[in-house]
Amino acid sequence: MRTAQYLGDHRVAAVEAEPAAPEAGEVQIRVAYTGLCGTDLHIVHGDMDGRVRRPLAFGHEMSGIVAAVGAGVTAVQPGQHVTVMPLSWDGTCPACRAGHEHICQNLDFVGIDSPGSLQELWTVPERIVIPVPESAPLRQMALVEPVAVAVHDVRRSELRGGDRVLVIGGGPIGLLIATVARHRGAEVVVSEVDASRRGQAAELGFDVIDPAGEDPVAAVERWTEGAGADVVFEVSGAAAALRSATSFAKVRGTLVIVAIHPVPREIDVQRVFWRELRLLGARVYERADFEEAIGLVAAGVIPAERLITDVVPLEETQEAFARLESGQAMKVLVDVAGAAL
Amino acid sequence: MRTAQYLGDHRVAAVEAEPAAPEAGEVQIRVAYTGLCGTDLHIVHGDMDGRVRRPLAFGHEMSGIVAAVGAGVTAVQPGQHVTVMPLSWDGTCPACRAGHEHICQNLDFVGIDSPGSLQELWTVPERIVIPVPESAPLRQMALVEPVAVAVHDVRRSELRGGDRVLVIGGGPIGLLIATVARHRGAEVVVSEVDASRRGQAAELGFDVIDPAGEDPVAAVERWTEGAGADVVFEVSGAAAALRSATSFAKVRGTLVIVAIHPVPREIDVQRVFWRELRLLGARVYERADFEEAIGLVAAGVIPAERLITDVVPLEETQEAFARLESGQAMKVLVDVAGAAL
Ligand SMILES: [Zn+2]
Ligand SMILES: [Zn+2]
Repeated sequence: MRTAQYLGDHRVAAVEAEPAAPEAGEVQIRVAYTGLCGTDLHIVHGDMDGRVRRPLAFGHEMSGIVAAVGAGVTAVQPGQHVTVMPLSWDGTCPACRAGHEHICQNLDFVGIDSPGSLQELWTVPERIVIPVPESAPLRQMALVEPVAVAVHDVRRSELRGGDRVLVIGGGPIGLLIATVARHRGAEVVVSEVDASRRGQAAELGFDVIDPAGEDPVAAVERWTEGAGADVVFEVSGAAAALRSATSFAKVRGTLVIVAIHPVPREIDVQRVFWRELRLLGARVYERADFEEAIGLVAAGVIPAERLITDVVPLEETQEAFARLESGQAMKVLVDVAGAAL
Repeated sequence: MRTAQYLGDHRVAAVEAEPAAPEAGEVQIRVAYTGLCGTDLHIVHGDMDGRVRRPLAFGHEMSGIVAAVGAGVTAVQPGQHVTVMPLSWDGTCPACRAGHEHICQNLDFVGIDSPGSLQELWTVPERIVIPVPESAPLRQMALVEPVAVAVHDVRRSELRGGDRVLVIGGGPIGLLIATVARHRGAEVVVSEVDASRRGQAAELGFDVIDPAGEDPVAAVERWTEGAGADVVFEVSGAAAALRSATSFAKVRGTLVIVAIHPVPREIDVQRVFWRELRLLGARVYERADFEEAIGLVAAGVIPAERLITDVVPLEETQEAFARLESGQAMKVLVDVAGAAL
């Protein structure tokens, strides 16, 4: 079968490999599409070489059709359309025992810590395979994983209908969070430095702020009549954005930390204290988030086709990263199956 | 009447002044004791000269007896023992309208933004006067305000009986938080760099960690069997303590920011994200916290007499700050009434 593998040294190549037959409790999926994300970019940049075995068929945003099942599998059957929640937890650590398996202290992220979905035939444990409706296009179902991130972030924020929500960072996750928050009844503004991304946000119907072109704190004060936003999502990953993020939140407001900040970063702790703010970390998703994400994509709440800016064959995975990196592409899908589906 | 006033330029002096008669809705209190705290120290150091009018009779931790009431006052009557919740809110800002009057966006902190209790006769609005039981010694009732801070911090943390709680910083507020948390059924450990403060914490029955003498993260891991603490209170105000504070919290654990961090500080945001931590700012108190604090002091839950290390006459207020600053004193009370009560 065809796979796309990270070989180390910034290289990604199409490599022939033997598919693994599903053992007991496993499901073999014929992968339709695999989305590429910022984490994959980090892998290819070598930033995660300390964690990632090479060669690695990576990829963790996907859709596909069950090809075969191992002994004892009951959750799905061959022919069924599925996606995968790419988390593998140990079930025994304190986090798992407290019911937070999704952030298990020994979490194995499938597609990073173990082989992912840039393979024509991908074999995974039954418990992480989730059926999707056959009526929904498979290419759209490849968006379920990032949508589940957004659903998780919004759920974690506990926002309510009518809340005023600021999303800092208008990339794919930022726009998905904005979309989910709006669907829950929030009034959403997106702050984004990049003009073309601001344009995309505006096209999706969001009010936008250019934090370089106007005073964003004054803009939020005006919008919220001096109160501040109920919920702020920090999705940019920029140090400066994090330093000012607390300025936008109302008294007792919530700031959700969605982006990766690899080094300790300055926060206006005095503002956290002064306004009794709440800062929440939000990472990956739980099963309920995945289920909800499937529903939102299937129902057309997520503007999937507007977000999917590029679809490339498996052989062009390496080139696709250049598009992703340029910031021109919003969501790039790898068409793993090609003529096979 | 006698008062102690901050004159600017690091100077505090005993000054004679005319008492203000209570107008309609006001209460005149004969002040018994006024506690000195870190904020008062900041005032005397000139750190708050931009905010504080000079001369100012400061002081906001107090107990006393109602001397006279203005027209229409019904909450208290002359002779009643009272304390004061030193907050004055506008009632009209977004925070007030949302029910968070205690952190009003235009809060006047009585004793900082307006005259305080280092006056023999202190006149304040009725709504901030709170009766205390006559059976409790007035010197102990002067501790109610800092105890209310601790009650508020603990309430904000939502800790539950059986939770493992780390308090970073073993000064007066840290030990009060530890005491209130233990009273709520938590298992409490205090981390403190200063040996004499560690000794005081140990005398109050708390397990202590010397973060300079042992690896505090390893100690907490051992104590919590690899999980991390349910709740961490950052009370030290130290940059290094804040930088490591997130390391102590369990997955989905809570870090309460109690201390003042006057400049933006580095936080391990990645840890906040990775463990889905919750950071909460906690500032001053609400009426319910004051009521609970009065009960805790009156019932002897707070080891008031152990915490009160110094009682000085009004004329020695300036000298008392030297004791406070040395770190030798835990809680210094000014005996404002002297022979008058
Ligand atoms: Zn686990
Ligand atoms: Zn107000």
